[in-house]
Amino acid sequence: MAAKKVLIVYAHQSSGSFSAAAKDAAVEVLTAQGCTVEVSDLYAMKFKATATAEDITGEPKNAEHFRYAEETKLAWEEGKLSADITEEQRKVTEADLIIFQFPMYWFSLPAILKGWFDRVLTLGFAYSHDKRYSHGIFKDKKTVLSFTTGSHESMFSATGINGDMNVTLWPLQNGILHYCGFQVLAPQIFWAPSHVASQARSTMLEEWRKRLPGLLGEEPLTFTPMDCFDVEKGFQLKPEVHEKNATKEFGLTVGIHLGKRLPPNNQMKCGV
Amino acid sequence: MAAKKVLIVYAHQSSGSFSAAAKDAAVEVLTAQGCTVEVSDLYAMKFKATATAEDITGEPKNAEHFRYAEETKLAWEEGKLSADITEEQRKVTEADLIIFQFPMYWFSLPAILKGWFDRVLTLGFAYSHDKRYSHGIFKDKKTVLSFTTGSHESMFSATGINGDMNVTLWPLQNGILHYCGFQVLAPQIFWAPSHVASQARSTMLEEWRKRLPGLLGEEPLTFTPMDCFDVEKGFQLKPEVHEKNATKEFGLTVGIHLGKRLPPNNQMKCGV
Repeated sequence: MAAKKVLIVYAHQSSGSFSAAAKDAAVEVLTAQGCTVEVSDLYAMKFKATATAEDITGEPKNAEHFRYAEETKLAWEEGKLSADITEEQRKVTEADLIIFQFPMYWFSLPAILKGWFDRVLTLGFAYSHDKRYSHGIFKDKKTVLSFTTGSHESMFSATGINGDMNVTLWPLQNGILHYCGFQVLAPQIFWAPSHVASQARSTMLEEWRKRLPGLLGEEPLTFTPMDCFDVEKGFQLKPEVHEKNATKEFGLTVGIHLGKRLPPNNQMKCGV
Repeated sequence: MAAKKVLIVYAHQSSGSFSAAAKDAAVEVLTAQGCTVEVSDLYAMKFKATATAEDITGEPKNAEHFRYAEETKLAWEEGKLSADITEEQRKVTEADLIIFQFPMYWFSLPAILKGWFDRVLTLGFAYSHDKRYSHGIFKDKKTVLSFTTGSHESMFSATGINGDMNVTLWPLQNGILHYCGFQVLAPQIFWAPSHVASQARSTMLEEWRKRLPGLLGEEPLTFTPMDCFDVEKGFQLKPEVHEKNATKEFGLTVGIHLGKRLPPNNQMKCGV
């Protein structure tokens, strides 16, 4: 097997953090396995989070009514994206696996990492009208969200105060990663490391180290393939898919639930 | 009735955009109604999106292991938050209603707006362990997400390719807004304005103008009150709440669904 390339997009301010330790563990274990590992340390790079006209070298096509997606698509075609975006796109193109390592902020990504998605995954490079979801551009690549939470696991359940973590993960895993075609692996969730004893933190890190060697061989989460939807009818599920699922207890995924019960752990475990 | 104060947090790069028109309509209609309206135009302000040690004047308490939430909590108590954060916090404190006007990026907020949430809603100022959700600090304030999508409405349904918009809204409306106690009004969604005819865009704006005068009097969306959860038991739903809901068809909210069917439009319409 050819040596695999791994990109770690890492977003924490402090080298003393649990997130830093999780990132370091991934570098160490995957390198030892023969992978080539690159790290985009967003805070250290002072990565620009905000999508602006400066992301394009030269004049925008329509400065008066600047539309980010259209302008960056054109700039990508013409080789006029800013150097920092181009460099991140090179890393994405070369990677077989991308690990996103971050602390969850407000049920989502820290702004600096959201900015990485907003700016790097440009129209044309990462998706197009024809190339998305199961027809997506990155369908031969795997990715995993690896993150810490501030809340305990009990709070992030369907009967806990924060609600079901599967729901919180849907817009990230379906709306960004699967949208671009990535095979999305089960998330690695470090529950509230700052609220547990140091022994429990060590155990969490140890589990991550044990998972890492097999990561590239893992099966991805389940999403609904493109050919289940009718392009001509507003990308609605085809009648035959409805029929096939009529008597089933659960919906297809967290988001495409057909008004049925959510398939438990659809965004947390593969095969559901 | 005393004149109400409205804050519009606005995130679009272009004054020629539909988002700008929606923001301008809100300023005009609410001002005409006697409200005092402030606008935070994030791109024009070059608002810093990234949460860093520079958000604190002077030395952080623990530079070695910088923890953003703890450091900004202390800085807030000691009056050492950076001037741009303090100014936005003043606007929030004074506002009776906050309108967030933005284009949806990747099923979520543009990074510059995510950064506003990450940096302005600091621990202590916006929430604490005791003061969150229905006990939250901003429980006398109303807020509304007003945004454009790139996709058509049919795609954002429980049978459409992007999945149920209610699911996508949960982490934003529950995880940020309701978490801080805000009364969250039904979102104002402008479906794919860049993909429809100009007449349809005008109609959408007209509907927004019609809604605006009544906004401050609207009932909020339904969330599950704090006293339904047992603090001592990891913020899990109390047994009596389970019992009360045992025979019901739907869960309580999108996130706290108890393994039942999601209450339809729980994050889109008030009273469900």
